[in-house]
Amino acid sequence: MTSFVFRRQMMIEWGHCDPAGIVFNSRFFEFFDTSTWLLFDAALGVKPPDLTGTFGIIGIPLVDARAEFRKPAKFGETIEIASRVSEFRRSSFDVEHHISVGGELAIEGGETRVWAARDKDNPDKIGAVAIPAEVIAKFG
Amino acid sequence: MTSFVFRRQMMIEWGHCDPAGIVFNSRFFEFFDTSTWLLFDAALGVKPPDLTGTFGIIGIPLVDARAEFRKPAKFGETIEIASRVSEFRRSSFDVEHHISVGGELAIEGGETRVWAARDKDNPDKIGAVAIPAEVIAKFG
Amino acid sequence: MTSFVFRRQMMIEWGHCDPAGIVFNSRFFEFFDTSTWLLFDAALGVKPPDLTGTFGIIGIPLVDARAEFRKPAKFGETIEIASRVSEFRRSSFDVEHHISVGGELAIEGGETRVWAARDKDNPDKIGAVAIPAEVIAKFG
Amino acid sequence: MTSFVFRRQMMIEWGHCDPAGIVFNSRFFEFFDTSTWLLFDAALGVKPPDLTGTFGIIGIPLVDARAEFRKPAKFGETIEIASRVSEFRRSSFDVEHHISVGGELAIEGGETRVWAARDKDNPDKIGAVAIPAEVIAKFG
Repeated sequence: MTSFVFRRQMMIEWGHCDPAGIVFNSRFFEFFDTSTWLLFDAALGVKPPDLTGTFGIIGIPLVDARAEFRKPAKFGETIEIASRVSEFRRSSFDVEHHISVGGELAIEGGETRVWAARDKDNPDKIGAVAIPAEVIAKFG
Repeated sequence: MTSFVFRRQMMIEWGHCDPAGIVFNSRFFEFFDTSTWLLFDAALGVKPPDLTGTFGIIGIPLVDARAEFRKPAKFGETIEIASRVSEFRRSSFDVEHHISVGGELAIEGGETRVWAARDKDNPDKIGAVAIPAEVIAKFG
Repeated sequence: MTSFVFRRQMMIEWGHCDPAGIVFNSRFFEFFDTSTWLLFDAALGVKPPDLTGTFGIIGIPLVDARAEFRKPAKFGETIEIASRVSEFRRSSFDVEHHISVGGELAIEGGETRVWAARDKDNPDKIGAVAIPAEVIAKFG
Repeated sequence: MTSFVFRRQMMIEWGHCDPAGIVFNSRFFEFFDTSTWLLFDAALGVKPPDLTGTFGIIGIPLVDARAEFRKPAKFGETIEIASRVSEFRRSSFDVEHHISVGGELAIEGGETRVWAARDKDNPDKIGAVAIPAEVIAKFG
């Protein structure tokens, strides 16, 4: 478990919500994706569109995503999303996202992503490569 | 043209963008919708989910929306959305949204909405009703 | 594992895809949600908006969702989504969704949902209730 | 007004709808975008992802979109979208989309798009180019 946590607050919008008046599930996966980009921005000091160029990667593609919905979030409510890398492995990592509403944990999300680059000998091939130690160090 | 302008800044997210790397058109209509709710919040001091209860309406349904896309907005860019009511009529109104990227006007949007309530004698019927003068006054 | 499988094919649309030219992750959770409604329609012969009224429930809210992304799906590709209830418990159930592209399994998704109703004595309270045996029987 | 009309039917999904139980406005602009791609596929016999390569263009970017919402579309309803090119100009064209619910016109949409290519002398520059006569002819 790394120690660097990125937190942001956002208001639940009308368009996020379904006929039950609560956030439609797919929206949370959008929130997670954006929080991961912002977490890397905050930890590394690299703007999202510069991440690939700075590290010579094609991105940090998602290979697994999951969420447990304990309490709903409703139109107009302010949620807080707290995100951190829970584990770095050689070329992949897990991000956990905790969404709270009114100070109570409402949704627990998780993502597994890979640090992916084009093969030097075969640029058509994309694969997981080792995450630089200096990147991992920045997450504490 | 009313004088009250609501401005907000937001970062363009990965999930907002299409394979051309620019914001997919439908997202701008989400941005407009949210800016209209926030404009009313800012002008009236009424939180979005309280708007219906405060004024005895069922909402401010959209009857017309339009946008002119002059320049694209790209992943990671910060946009500013400036929104104002361009005209109040008896029971409907127009909102204009100007989105700028790097200080330049990039997208011009417009919405026409109605001030809608249930008919007192026939609650199944929804119709446009007169916008209270005190509401209009708050927009300057 | 129930035996009733619902399959549908759909084309990947421009607006489903991100700047990498592949389906943005949150879209798959939309696809799963719709396939679950259609699976119940196909198994029970009850149209989605009639499900609540027919069974006296408020819906089948999602409490857990997950997906493993093995291969991407690209703009213009036709995918097939095969969905089935993998397990019925007293008042909750799991749905599994297999998405294939070109005949190969590309994404494996899962949802856990509850059969939820208002409490008879306290209509403000919503809780999981027993799934009728006749519902379960229809899934084989 | 060209004579070639592309029609498709689709069911309104739970995730398309907002807390009022009706399709959220931005979704219609997704429907329009997809119908335009399918209209070109049907008229030209060119699959959406092959359109750029076949004609040496970078795409048919949207420069203006608009919709008039007369009647809402609700969860579970089947809508029909009828799309046609209403006017071809030298390097731009208008598409009109009529959405009907239960046989009644509910939403009228319009898009203006350009036939866009990279400049031969300056590939960083993208501009509108003449639409081939054989393309226009296919729309009748």
